Amino acid sequence: MKQYQPVTEEVIQALRRIVGEKYVKTDAAVLDVYKSDESLAPSFWRAPEVVVLPANTQEVAAVMKVANAFAVPVTPRSAGTSVSCGAVPAYGGIVLLMERMNRILEVNEEGMYMVVEAGVRTIDIQNLARSKQLMYAGDPCSSDSCLIGGNLATNAGGNKAVRYGTTRHQVYAIEVVLPNGKIANLGAPLKKCSTGFCLDQLIIGSEGTLGIITKATLKLVPLSPYKLDVLAVFTDLAKATALVPQLVKAGLNPTSVEFMDNNFVRSASDYSELRLPHYEDGFYDIISIETFNETELDEKMEKLAAICEQCGATDIVEADDRVWKVRRNCLESTRVFSKVATSEDLVVPVTKIADCIQHLVEESKNYDFRVFCLAHAGDGNLHFQILQCDLSDDEWKRQVEAFRAVAYPYVYQLGGRLSGEHGIGLKRLEYMERYTDPVELDVMRTIKTALDPQWILNPGKVMGPQ
Amino acid sequence: MKQYQPVTEEVIQALRRIVGEKYVKTDAAVLDVYKSDESLAPSFWRAPEVVVLPANTQEVAAVMKVANAFAVPVTPRSAGTSVSCGAVPAYGGIVLLMERMNRILEVNEEGMYMVVEAGVRTIDIQNLARSKQLMYAGDPCSSDSCLIGGNLATNAGGNKAVRYGTTRHQVYAIEVVLPNGKIANLGAPLKKCSTGFCLDQLIIGSEGTLGIITKATLKLVPLSPYKLDVLAVFTDLAKATALVPQLVKAGLNPTSVEFMDNNFVRSASDYSELRLPHYEDGFYDIISIETFNETELDEKMEKLAAICEQCGATDIVEADDRVWKVRRNCLESTRVFSKVATSEDLVVPVTKIADCIQHLVEESKNYDFRVFCLAHAGDGNLHFQILQCDLSDDEWKRQVEAFRAVAYPYVYQLGGRLSGEHGIGLKRLEYMERYTDPVELDVMRTIKTALDPQWILNPGKVMGPQ
Repeated sequence: MKQYQPVTEEVIQALRRIVGEKYVKTDAAVLDVYKSDESLAPSFWRAPEVVVLPANTQEVAAVMKVANAFAVPVTPRSAGTSVSCGAVPAYGGIVLLMERMNRILEVNEEGMYMVVEAGVRTIDIQNLARSKQLMYAGDPCSSDSCLIGGNLATNAGGNKAVRYGTTRHQVYAIEVVLPNGKIANLGAPLKKCSTGFCLDQLIIGSEGTLGIITKATLKLVPLSPYKLDVLAVFTDLAKATALVPQLVKAGLNPTSVEFMDNNFVRSASDYSELRLPHYEDGFYDIISIETFNETELDEKMEKLAAICEQCGATDIVEADDRVWKVRRNCLESTRVFSKVATSEDLVVPVTKIADCIQHLVEESKNYDFRVFCLAHAGDGNLHFQILQCDLSDDEWKRQVEAFRAVAYPYVYQLGGRLSGEHGIGLKRLEYMERYTDPVELDVMRTIKTALDPQWILNPGKVMGPQ
Repeated sequence: MKQYQPVTEEVIQALRRIVGEKYVKTDAAVLDVYKSDESLAPSFWRAPEVVVLPANTQEVAAVMKVANAFAVPVTPRSAGTSVSCGAVPAYGGIVLLMERMNRILEVNEEGMYMVVEAGVRTIDIQNLARSKQLMYAGDPCSSDSCLIGGNLATNAGGNKAVRYGTTRHQVYAIEVVLPNGKIANLGAPLKKCSTGFCLDQLIIGSEGTLGIITKATLKLVPLSPYKLDVLAVFTDLAKATALVPQLVKAGLNPTSVEFMDNNFVRSASDYSELRLPHYEDGFYDIISIETFNETELDEKMEKLAAICEQCGATDIVEADDRVWKVRRNCLESTRVFSKVATSEDLVVPVTKIADCIQHLVEESKNYDFRVFCLAHAGDGNLHFQILQCDLSDDEWKRQVEAFRAVAYPYVYQLGGRLSGEHGIGLKRLEYMERYTDPVELDVMRTIKTALDPQWILNPGKVMGPQ
């Protein structure tokens, strides 16, 4: 890593001149707030030396120029809902809080797009779109609290990715402050374009290492007025997961396909004080379908029921509020078993998710931790919740490492990757460097170094400098 | 531009050792074939010094290493159907013909993808997919003759872009030979991924300047069994174009929306010896709709008819073979008026296409050339066919330049760009540099220089080195 300099009084003065005294924070109590995210991984946490709250793009650009001049690292931060330590200032320095840049600048109903600053809450974007009979299809589970800038930086996934894709698919254009402090406008509100390099997609998902996204033009889509959620219950893991590609192939175009293993069915039912079908031995698929008219919905529902039956479902019922309550309580419900846990965000080709879940569940039996499995099955994204329970800290660490040393190469062999939606951040950097094709890593580092010679912007994330 | 060296006997020998004597061509007659593309813009043409036909990725990589060692530029070439001089060797050197790498390596029906080498014809991919009841949705008008590698390099658009997006949206992963001769595998057959930079999308559409795509994993989608094409006739340009956003907003999700102005209606009808409605004063919208069941098609057709009526259509009829014949003969039909013509590939936000067409048609009346207008209206992509007719060559050149000096800034002001689907190539490089945000150009050049310090790969395309 390049040599960084500490944040001196001279740097603080320069920052104050840019954003005003009120928006430069150096009290220990404030700095302590910004040492962590929601990862619950204290070993990665580190407090910044200063927190700066810019009001606009020009101030962000000016901060980057100061950071370069003084060789001080900058970590941009949205709402801090990351679980990969993407917003943790790995090398101290400046944390740049985007929350003041929270204006919705334009809603264009005819053009079906919205222009927002990076600090707007995702749910506010969703709600405003809905009030215009349109939809913003990005929908991370944290949408109540997360900010759109963080969604863009990590290419957040979420609840509608099967049908609508992830955050990067919802974007026409971005305004970006580059590591050198220049402001670039990348992309355009066009359905097609063959005019230059696709720089917008390069920046989106780069986890704040190539630029700070300050503004975005987001696509809106027509709101589907008809919707039905179905719970298909299986007593066999293979059958429950084999359903997924059949749904896609039939042209049903589901909005989401969520999977819960029997461990989660039990724990979340207990926690919710509800009894749903096959509590003892059920694996659940929850399928959401949206359409533009009632007949289409009826027809898709008939087709869906037929496919579920062919695949061996024992029960096919409407997924009402009780089902969603159980689904929502999954992670919370495991806390009674263990306060310490780690969560995996593996992603594999959709056709491989059945094999992958079965194989990793089988593998996990060789260890003393407990494993619960949830999946955004429709997009091949698997969240293993691994619980420490009564293992010692050392043993817990050793066994998780041993499991990963088997699981990760297996996932890569299936064509999968480390992270489907949470990002690499600081938490997975070591694994990223171990499992990524060296040529690909080399290209990433070459581009990073070309755009940010001092590695001043969010260093220690995604990959190190070699 | 960097200093390139001529192709010496030593270079020829090195190339022969890589691909075999038979696949290194130096006869003047062969070289002459590869000086041009389908742009009919002789002022940009230049013959290569040698043509090389690699059999596989390793040979492509070895050629790049030789090119670097000897400072000889390399221009990759697919079928040469480009109309932007993207495959013309601007600085001589090596033309790398990809046509021998023409194997379809895998069709995975369950995973709904196909793995192909870069030299496979697009139509062969489409046909093979269809034989499996699946669809490859990339569909440039030249699909009969073009190769997939060229489609990927230019992010080709075509006939299904409204519903399915352009070529970049049909890709899971690519294998790329980098300018330094290393082989990278970028992307993966995943529905979502937050593991590192989005390098696949950076390479796709970079017109062979950042890497040579040698293999691709292409998405396949379910084939819609029901389809209907409708011709909506308007006697008012504004009404004909105002239809487009209404179709999108209604959730009709058309596969394509094509527009023809009255000049084309007349000339293509005459050429085809057919009389369609409102020959004298008609503007045509042709709308294709595909569905998964008959009821859905019926319902969408009813809705479509209602919207067309509301928008002021005078006739709403099924677009049969006669309509498509007229549409297909558009460009050909203008040859009787002028042998020399130039075609624009402007793209604007879909909501602006009505204004844009009206404004530019009005502007064109200030010049002595003739203008015919076609548009992939559903994606905002406008093809102005500008005919020299009886203007002198000098006057023709002067007037086209004068028109562009008005038209291009206007299109950029609308949020549009120079090229929707043909690419910049050599033909539009000067305009690209003039109208692109300098910060964006600077990032493009920085990345190009970082990955290709000698600017050895397809130099003179998209942008120059500054």
